[in-house]
Amino acid sequence: MFGSKDHLTTIDNHLYIEDVDCCRLAAEEGTPLYVTSERRLRENIRRYHRAFPDAEKYFAVKANGNLAILQVAAQEGMGADIFSAGELSLVRLAGIPRDMILFNGNSKSEKDHIAALQAGVRISVDSNEELEHLARTARNLDSEAEILFRVNPNVSPKTHPKIATGLRSSKFGIPAEQVAGTYKRAMELEGIKPVGLHCHIGSQILDTAPFAEAAGRMMDITRAVVAEGGNVERIDLGGGLGIQYQPDSTAPLPSDLAKAVLPVIQDSCRDMGIFPQLILEPGRSIVADSTIMLTGVNVVKRAHVNFVAVDAGFNVLARPMLYDSYHHVLAANRAEEQGEETYTIVGPICETGDVLARDRRLPRLVRGDTLAFLDAGAYGFSMASQYNGQPRPAEVLVSEDRWELIRHREDESALLAGQTIPSRLMW
Amino acid sequence: MFGSKDHLTTIDNHLYIEDVDCCRLAAEEGTPLYVTSERRLRENIRRYHRAFPDAEKYFAVKANGNLAILQVAAQEGMGADIFSAGELSLVRLAGIPRDMILFNGNSKSEKDHIAALQAGVRISVDSNEELEHLARTARNLDSEAEILFRVNPNVSPKTHPKIATGLRSSKFGIPAEQVAGTYKRAMELEGIKPVGLHCHIGSQILDTAPFAEAAGRMMDITRAVVAEGGNVERIDLGGGLGIQYQPDSTAPLPSDLAKAVLPVIQDSCRDMGIFPQLILEPGRSIVADSTIMLTGVNVVKRAHVNFVAVDAGFNVLARPMLYDSYHHVLAANRAEEQGEETYTIVGPICETGDVLARDRRLPRLVRGDTLAFLDAGAYGFSMASQYNGQPRPAEVLVSEDRWELIRHREDESALLAGQTIPSRLMW
Repeated sequence: MFGSKDHLTTIDNHLYIEDVDCCRLAAEEGTPLYVTSERRLRENIRRYHRAFPDAEKYFAVKANGNLAILQVAAQEGMGADIFSAGELSLVRLAGIPRDMILFNGNSKSEKDHIAALQAGVRISVDSNEELEHLARTARNLDSEAEILFRVNPNVSPKTHPKIATGLRSSKFGIPAEQVAGTYKRAMELEGIKPVGLHCHIGSQILDTAPFAEAAGRMMDITRAVVAEGGNVERIDLGGGLGIQYQPDSTAPLPSDLAKAVLPVIQDSCRDMGIFPQLILEPGRSIVADSTIMLTGVNVVKRAHVNFVAVDAGFNVLARPMLYDSYHHVLAANRAEEQGEETYTIVGPICETGDVLARDRRLPRLVRGDTLAFLDAGAYGFSMASQYNGQPRPAEVLVSEDRWELIRHREDESALLAGQTIPSRLMW
Repeated sequence: MFGSKDHLTTIDNHLYIEDVDCCRLAAEEGTPLYVTSERRLRENIRRYHRAFPDAEKYFAVKANGNLAILQVAAQEGMGADIFSAGELSLVRLAGIPRDMILFNGNSKSEKDHIAALQAGVRISVDSNEELEHLARTARNLDSEAEILFRVNPNVSPKTHPKIATGLRSSKFGIPAEQVAGTYKRAMELEGIKPVGLHCHIGSQILDTAPFAEAAGRMMDITRAVVAEGGNVERIDLGGGLGIQYQPDSTAPLPSDLAKAVLPVIQDSCRDMGIFPQLILEPGRSIVADSTIMLTGVNVVKRAHVNFVAVDAGFNVLARPMLYDSYHHVLAANRAEEQGEETYTIVGPICETGDVLARDRRLPRLVRGDTLAFLDAGAYGFSMASQYNGQPRPAEVLVSEDRWELIRHREDESALLAGQTIPSRLMW
């Protein structure tokens, strides 16, 4: 019924995730609620291992920073692609080995560099300027930074412009033509040990051709680096593999990605006589479809169009508002009923842009119904805010017929966290 | 030097807010940091009181939910426009009287209605359907809800489409032609006492004509309601007055707004022989220009363009990414130097869309410099998230030559709040 999503089924008109009734989840844990299938999460990781048996896979923590999910990723042998000292602390807590952590980012502070050096993780250096800063900090600490260079390969994937990260105009990476020179200078810098190259062309990419193109560019750059005497032990192709948000769409699998990029890399490396460790940084394609977001219907309003106003807005799930993203929606308590009405689904936030889905055919809905937004595991909770005084939602992990809370629901008191009032203002 | 912003000055090449050196603030409190001038905040409120001596002014808490700022608003005689039970708890803590609180929103849960009824605040009812839900809840509690109806006036302000809230196609309000009928039915509903009408046409509106147009529509609707025997004691014109984000732009003042709307309302009400309480809901025009956001420069990178990578991204200040908003930027430690370079200012977030400002002429910048984003008090911290594992920033309130922390900076441990790991996942 749900294509390849075999962790979702219906029984007696209710949506189930693994063997748990989503209506029971909504009733007992409340809404909005993020619900992750542990089985699906593990399957998605294993699919990568099968497609790329020799590559290291670093989970893109920005997609989902829940500790229990990171713990599963660690158990399944993933490393981590991190973007901040905060994410570093999360992945270390989850037990991801330091040798499989890469600290990425275009705007690292001295504090970030120190955290990375002290934790002993590799750093992806985004610019010539960062290289100098990092070298200085490493020397001050009597340390040596193992680095990869983030390369801007100038590849254009067909995705939303806000998440196309490999264009020449993007803020990320060192222009391709400068990399060999930078690498050479880095080899001579005290405190720095360059060990490889890194790129990342974007997110939610539904065609493998741009990945093959990026792999080709990376090989060209590797050749130039090797010609300068550089030692390229690691080649990180980043993440970005898209998933099937729309039921009638198709998305490439990790095995398709492997077919597109492995021959390019293997042939070139054999020619060069080098055997670098390949690294991938999947996030969305690991966690997105493992998770649904349940939200309760507050009002069904007939106005210019039929609105369904639910208890989750862009405070809970920002993607539709930010990128016009599509999430497929089901009525969790009417999962076997026909679509009878066309609805625009809106949240409780004070902005007209707070629309989660447009023109969806759904069964006739009433207050108290529960909707399920599919494929909500990536860039869902991780982008949540307390905008409009909304406490953030809970998260649960489902395994077979049981579930556990993996993040408690905030209550109103969470809005007070850290606040203080100067005494002169207290009458 | 800064137009009408007389709370900002420069001394010895440093930017000052009131009598506090912004460089000292950055050094002692760290960055990113929101800094509010208490004097400017109070002045902005008093400007509304002078322009509208007889109106009630309800602070739009969605713009800024800091308790100290709400406390100042309460001291200055403001009420509150709230959008959630969370915002209700904040304004009650800040001492805003219940008689001056309006609970707005298009998607209220039963819990929201109960919170509003128990607190004894008025409710803005967004639809016929909400009216029925609320009546039932009020009767269950043996209570009576004093309500205003949120009217969709179908007025088109010239602003960003995501924040134009009075269009016919927006999710908000009851279509104008239905209001009189709904009002009449409400008068007969047990548990409901309709006392007025409410509209809100959008945000950051730089022309007073749409407000006059909306006031005219509200008067037409009032006339229809009165003709049906309705008692209109309160007319709430909402908020939306824009501010001068661009130094060379102009924005209407509260006095301009008064000139545009008061004659329309006074003439019509005199004709009808009614004397309703006028209500306004300013947010941005109260708090935006009272506050700057200080951010530290991590890297100055020469690539396709000159990038300045700072420690605040759209996790801290979302407006530029969400609405392509302009915030004027100054170099706080080079405040008297000429613009010598053109920079694109980017944050530390993993997305290409994480750009805070484009093509700005600024003095030549280096790592460690501090930039000030002006007019950051509205929809700044209130939209902040922990995306990319970034703890949220601190806020301080400045008064003359002293400052106090009004929200502590989060550290990495804030990312763990509420998280739990199922024991079966702990090896």
